[in-house]
Amino acid sequence: MSEVCFGVDVGGTTVKLGLVDSEGNLLEKREFASPKDPNAMFDVIVSHMDQVIVHYPGIRCMGAGVGVPGPVIDEAMVRSCSNLGWGRVMVAEELTKRAHMNIKVANDANMAAMGEMWMGAGKGCRNLVMLTVGTGVGGGIIVDGKILAGALGGGGEIGHIPLHYHPDWQCNCGKYGCLEVTASASGIIRAAKQYHPFSEMQDLGAKEVFEAMYAGDQHAREAVENAGKALGEACAILACVLNPEMFLVGGGVSAAGRALLDPIEQSFREKCFPPCANVRFARATLGNNAGIYGGAALFFAH
Amino acid sequence: MSEVCFGVDVGGTTVKLGLVDSEGNLLEKREFASPKDPNAMFDVIVSHMDQVIVHYPGIRCMGAGVGVPGPVIDEAMVRSCSNLGWGRVMVAEELTKRAHMNIKVANDANMAAMGEMWMGAGKGCRNLVMLTVGTGVGGGIIVDGKILAGALGGGGEIGHIPLHYHPDWQCNCGKYGCLEVTASASGIIRAAKQYHPFSEMQDLGAKEVFEAMYAGDQHAREAVENAGKALGEACAILACVLNPEMFLVGGGVSAAGRALLDPIEQSFREKCFPPCANVRFARATLGNNAGIYGGAALFFAH
Repeated sequence: MSEVCFGVDVGGTTVKLGLVDSEGNLLEKREFASPKDPNAMFDVIVSHMDQVIVHYPGIRCMGAGVGVPGPVIDEAMVRSCSNLGWGRVMVAEELTKRAHMNIKVANDANMAAMGEMWMGAGKGCRNLVMLTVGTGVGGGIIVDGKILAGALGGGGEIGHIPLHYHPDWQCNCGKYGCLEVTASASGIIRAAKQYHPFSEMQDLGAKEVFEAMYAGDQHAREAVENAGKALGEACAILACVLNPEMFLVGGGVSAAGRALLDPIEQSFREKCFPPCANVRFARATLGNNAGIYGGAALFFAH
Repeated sequence: MSEVCFGVDVGGTTVKLGLVDSEGNLLEKREFASPKDPNAMFDVIVSHMDQVIVHYPGIRCMGAGVGVPGPVIDEAMVRSCSNLGWGRVMVAEELTKRAHMNIKVANDANMAAMGEMWMGAGKGCRNLVMLTVGTGVGGGIIVDGKILAGALGGGGEIGHIPLHYHPDWQCNCGKYGCLEVTASASGIIRAAKQYHPFSEMQDLGAKEVFEAMYAGDQHAREAVENAGKALGEACAILACVLNPEMFLVGGGVSAAGRALLDPIEQSFREKCFPPCANVRFARATLGNNAGIYGGAALFFAH
């Protein structure tokens, strides 16, 4: 009898839910709008799981791995989810009550890193760091095959490494000079906006900056390189702290490809403590499904 | 029958060896010069262990935890020890062969952090970072009660966090602006030497700078504060990456006491990502015995 489990990636806007077998096959996937109320959220998740599982008679379901956008303690409780307006919620307890199965909870960025380790670009690694570069910069750290959650679930908040102080560079967290101020899509847009024609463009997005870069615009390239350099410096910091085998770069900004990865690697090589510099860099490969695979990895990756 | 084990702290100059029981009592301690040759080193360690154990008939010895000054893989092998002129050495295998007991090997700074967690200032914590501030800056990271060694044993090399680039601030590792360039005893001395009377003093040590600071010298205080600020900034970086419960500061420079800890905490509070800022700071308490306790902690701390 083959074994499966659910991977559930709870986001601020949508929930992605998939049934994954122990070989890493994604058998079925659903996506639905996120109810803001925790009870409504848990009811609709369990309802979807019930609907999916009936399609697979005779299968053995080991449980569900659930990612939430907030700090998670003991694979069970989330301390707060600002995207969902949640305070402290006993996610594992509430879902177990409804679904009568084993529930493991993790931070969404950490869970995505688990997914990439199990079935993505990090296959075969047991020590890796994933940087998710989008509107902000998220992170997931895997040490010896397990999520580094820290004492209060705040481990891996790489975007908030205080990197370069500047009084104009305030982060959403309230502090100044966090990595994500420079290295996120917003950071790239701000860097590009210092120059014509970007300075005149309303609703400038990272996509437009990338297009200009591919079309040969030097300022666009510099804006992306600037983000890459900051990410590379952060990787140099992380390498001497964690000594990982691999850095994975995912998220929307990773679409810039080598234009982002080259300056990351270059600034990493310049700064990294030599005994910890033996690291590979790669783009994440699972995209939006990384969380689903990561939920399954909480059960199947050893 | 009470259980004991050996903690062995192999340094570049001396070896410290202690017999510790499962309650954390240090029953007997020895210290002897470090033979540079690995075989001579192992022979003399085992000879001392044999001599010690006969004093405790009827006791059950669980094994020995051995710290070495280099990156350790799989609690067994050290990749290199520059202080001892060693390359790759199979420490666990060689000692097991001679001592016929279970041997666990760790990096010395990591082992000291384990010791402080088990029986020192970190008692009751399972997630902590120890900074050992002496001639250089060493580090040990404990995550969920275990040493973070990383893929190749280089985890916790906190002294090599690239913090502030400056072309004059080259580190022994070859890179520029590593934490230990600013925050070590050497960094404090260099900062003090910018000013009279320190600029004229031959063989100025950190001790003389501390004494001048206690006597009211403002430049001496600034030199120590400068190191503290850099350490606090490094702690702010580490907090969002690791989310520890506690930072412990040990090593010779920690003798500066509040004059060092106050600027550490102040710069930490200024820079740290708020959700990860709930951390305690304390001085390490086990001093030179931290490694011995740490060796025993590899067996007894759970």
